[in-house]
Amino acid sequence: MSGSFQDWMKSVQAGTETDMSAYLPAGDVVPTKLHAAMRYALLGGGKRVRPLLVHAAGALSGADARALSRAAAAVEMIHAYSLVHDDMPCMDDDELRRGKPTVHVAYDEATALLVGDALQAQAFKVLADADTVPPARQVAMLRLLAQAAGSAGMCGGQAIDLDSVGLALSLEQLERMHQLKTGALLRAAVVLGALAGKDLLPAELQALDDYSRAIGLAFQVVDDVLDATADSATLGKTAGKDAADNKPTYVSILGLEPSIALAEQLRQDAHAALVPFGDNALRLREIADLIVQRKA
Amino acid sequence: MSGSFQDWMKSVQAGTETDMSAYLPAGDVVPTKLHAAMRYALLGGGKRVRPLLVHAAGALSGADARALSRAAAAVEMIHAYSLVHDDMPCMDDDELRRGKPTVHVAYDEATALLVGDALQAQAFKVLADADTVPPARQVAMLRLLAQAAGSAGMCGGQAIDLDSVGLALSLEQLERMHQLKTGALLRAAVVLGALAGKDLLPAELQALDDYSRAIGLAFQVVDDVLDATADSATLGKTAGKDAADNKPTYVSILGLEPSIALAEQLRQDAHAALVPFGDNALRLREIADLIVQRKA
Repeated sequence: MSGSFQDWMKSVQAGTETDMSAYLPAGDVVPTKLHAAMRYALLGGGKRVRPLLVHAAGALSGADARALSRAAAAVEMIHAYSLVHDDMPCMDDDELRRGKPTVHVAYDEATALLVGDALQAQAFKVLADADTVPPARQVAMLRLLAQAAGSAGMCGGQAIDLDSVGLALSLEQLERMHQLKTGALLRAAVVLGALAGKDLLPAELQALDDYSRAIGLAFQVVDDVLDATADSATLGKTAGKDAADNKPTYVSILGLEPSIALAEQLRQDAHAALVPFGDNALRLREIADLIVQRKA
Repeated sequence: MSGSFQDWMKSVQAGTETDMSAYLPAGDVVPTKLHAAMRYALLGGGKRVRPLLVHAAGALSGADARALSRAAAAVEMIHAYSLVHDDMPCMDDDELRRGKPTVHVAYDEATALLVGDALQAQAFKVLADADTVPPARQVAMLRLLAQAAGSAGMCGGQAIDLDSVGLALSLEQLERMHQLKTGALLRAAVVLGALAGKDLLPAELQALDDYSRAIGLAFQVVDDVLDATADSATLGKTAGKDAADNKPTYVSILGLEPSIALAEQLRQDAHAALVPFGDNALRLREIADLIVQRKA
């Protein structure tokens, strides 16, 4: 846990890229178009926030590096599949993602649908293939990921998001939507990382929940601020889209300056939740800072 | 293992319906539209061939009834999600399924996309929640389902199917496609049922593979025969669609009578593979008969 955050982050990002590439079939394995498109969707970009969280939380429990690699890849595969499906014409209809054409633009809609479906299956496969985690804990990790990905988590949040277009959401309703849509998977990343090393005490799980809730909301508040203030080239995706789509955001409900202040408050909440873990939580604290201070 | 096949089948189908309903959130749980649509997609219809296979194979290993219930529901959830996505406009663009409007017609495309995504996650959740299976075997079951569902199984077969429209496939290429598209999940149903009760010997796994390969192909050959000969009302889906879509089928490659003869040969192959299991395989034999002799 020595060295700069930047060096650590780059090391985790590079390792995640290598590992995820190894956990996917090569692009020349039949069906080649599907496998090439899966690699296009998953590899070569992204901040890898969820893998960073997995590895940072692994420091709380002394988790095995190979177990963390699989947990990180699995969470990122779920995240990547959700981006591919969310970008499709029947959802957000986005043409740009991480500075590249979205999968349904680079390939076609049917392939984008299958890429998402196959990446989700592969996420569970990668976790189930782990051989350095006791089976009972492995089952707990698979259960956690399935719960976070499904209708009680990410998919449920996306459904509420779709149902909310054009509605005047309260702050509470907006928070509830984001806690499912992005918060559930961020929390899963944190808990999976810790769980990869040991069973968690209730107080530890509560502290990680508090941390996850704070960074999850902060992530979304900052997303909304950036969508309202940055340009598409900086973001690597279409800016100003929320307003154009008439979607409720923190900026539209609270205003810009109060949203920025809320993000800072959530950053401090995240730090406070980590106090019991002491120095072991250094990277988790730095990730909270990264989430709030990022420019894209 | 006493009583008529019809009675046994109806009992498994009814039990599967009850269990799957319990494994899904109620339709009035938020997000209500997504949960109602998931229930619409999964419940109230279908032959439940995969749950029948799970329970029939469970007789080979004396598997626990609750473990079989979860395995059956999980496989059927994967199957149901694949139907929802395959029916979407960017795939097969079908409006009728099991005699009802398809999910994207009854709801909308975005909901259909999320229903499939959430059902896949729920399938893994249902297996991971099992508490009557030793964890190591539970992990093996999760791994098997993930493998069968992903790009090396069902999704891969669907990708090859999409890439094959308008092409003149050889019989071997057609078989390879169907072994992935439908065969992988049928095999998973059989192996999950047996695995729910005990670890399998290599010879047992080989026999079940031979049986699964035979019924998987038979299932597709009969599907092609029915698509060419039955009407939409009998099928509960649009008949004659393969020819209209210019898709290669057994009937288009072999002709109608040779296809019917091939299905009968595969039925006999399935029976032959089950000889080592003796009377315990009664239901598996009867399912092979059902698959070949069905009219819809």
